[in-house]
Formats: sequence, C-alpha cells, structure tokens
Amino acid sequence: MLNYATPLDLVFHALADPTRRAMLERLSNGPASVSELAGPLAMSLPAVVQHLQVLEASGLVRSEKAGRVRTCRIEPAALGSVERWIAERQSNWDRRLDRLGDHLAGHEEESD
Amino acid sequence: MLNYATPLDLVFHALADPTRRAMLERLSNGPASVSELAGPLAMSLPAVVQHLQVLEASGLVRSEKAGRVRTCRIEPAALGSVERWIAERQSNWDRRLDRLGDHLAGHEEESD
Repeated sequence: MLNYATPLDLVFHALADPTRRAMLERLSNGPASVSELAGPLAMSLPAVVQHLQVLEASGLVRSEKAGRVRTCRIEPAALGSVERWIAERQSNWDRRLDRLGDHLAGHEEESD
Repeated sequence: MLNYATPLDLVFHALADPTRRAMLERLSNGPASVSELAGPLAMSLPAVVQHLQVLEASGLVRSEKAGRVRTCRIEPAALGSVERWIAERQSNWDRRLDRLGDHLAGHEEESD
C-alpha cells in the first residue's frame, strides 16, 4: 500500500537535493533554458538534465522544446499538495511551539 | 561541494516517505512511544525504528528512553530551515501565480 511513490513523495524527493533546489530557485525568478540552468552549476549538462527529469517527474517543473532550445518553468499547480501538507503541519507545530513557549516562559518565571 | 547531505537535504528526504509523514502527523499532535507510533502502521517494529532513525537524523524528531519506553517528539527548532526555504520560494511562486492569474484573466476577457 505504501510501496509506490505518491505525488508528495516525488515532490519532497525532488526538493531533497541542493542542485535541484538551486534550479528551482533560478526558475522561481522566471523561465530558463537548460543551458541557463546549467550555467552556475559545477556539473555536466547530462547531470543537469537528469536533475531536470527528477524535477519534471515531481511535477514541480515542466519544459518545452522550441527549435533547439528547451525552456523550463516552475509548475505552480504542483505545489498545491506540498503547500497544503506543510501548512497543516505548521499549524499543529505552531500550536506546539506556542505551548513550548508558554512552558519555557513558566520555567523562566520560576528561575527569576 | 554538493556531495554531502545538508540539513535541508535530510529534512526533505525524511519528508519524502508516506510512513515518515504519517509518524510526523501523529507526533504533531503530541509525544508518542515507539509502540504508539507503530500501532496504526502496517509494518514490523524494526521497520518503524528505521524510519524513526531517518526522522531523528533529519532533526525533525528526537526520542528519549525512560525505563523501557522510548518517547518520541517533534523537534520544533529543526523546522526553521525548511520553513524559511519554503516561505522564500512561496513568495516568489505566489508572485508568479499572481502574474499567471493576471495573464489568465486577460485571456478570459479576450474570450468573453
């Protein structure tokens, strides 16, 4: 039942690599060609293309080829599930942080 | 330079598995023993412990043994880096979404 990758698995897996996060950061500023993405990265073009494939499989990025240039862009819709998951956890975590804050504040008063 | 796992890599890697996310969801409601975590999961206790180790390596969870019971809890501080990264990307993405919305609204007007 848990042995296949869900969309959320693929998105978090895609985000778990610093090169892929750097590519997303670049693309969050606007579309870029594969060469433009590869420019600042200290790796071969085939390695960049492999990372791009992981990003495309996750749905975070899509690319289109026009003539000889493949243009990559962020796919905003794919972020919905991860944003929702994080927002839900954050609201729980924030409540826990608030309680931790209250707890620590209580300890501070005790030690005053 | 990019060949070692950063804290952010470890956190996203930990989040890229549905069992580990289920464990975090349980823990976001409060601390739990390993048995309590394993309860709703259709897997062996050693498998649960392995997932717990990945969560602990990421810093998202810590556990303490008291007597024969290991109690696990969310580590709120470890979320800072991932929350910041997502918030920064989201603000870029939201701006792009707004522009996409404007673009689509423009198209809608055209087709009206």
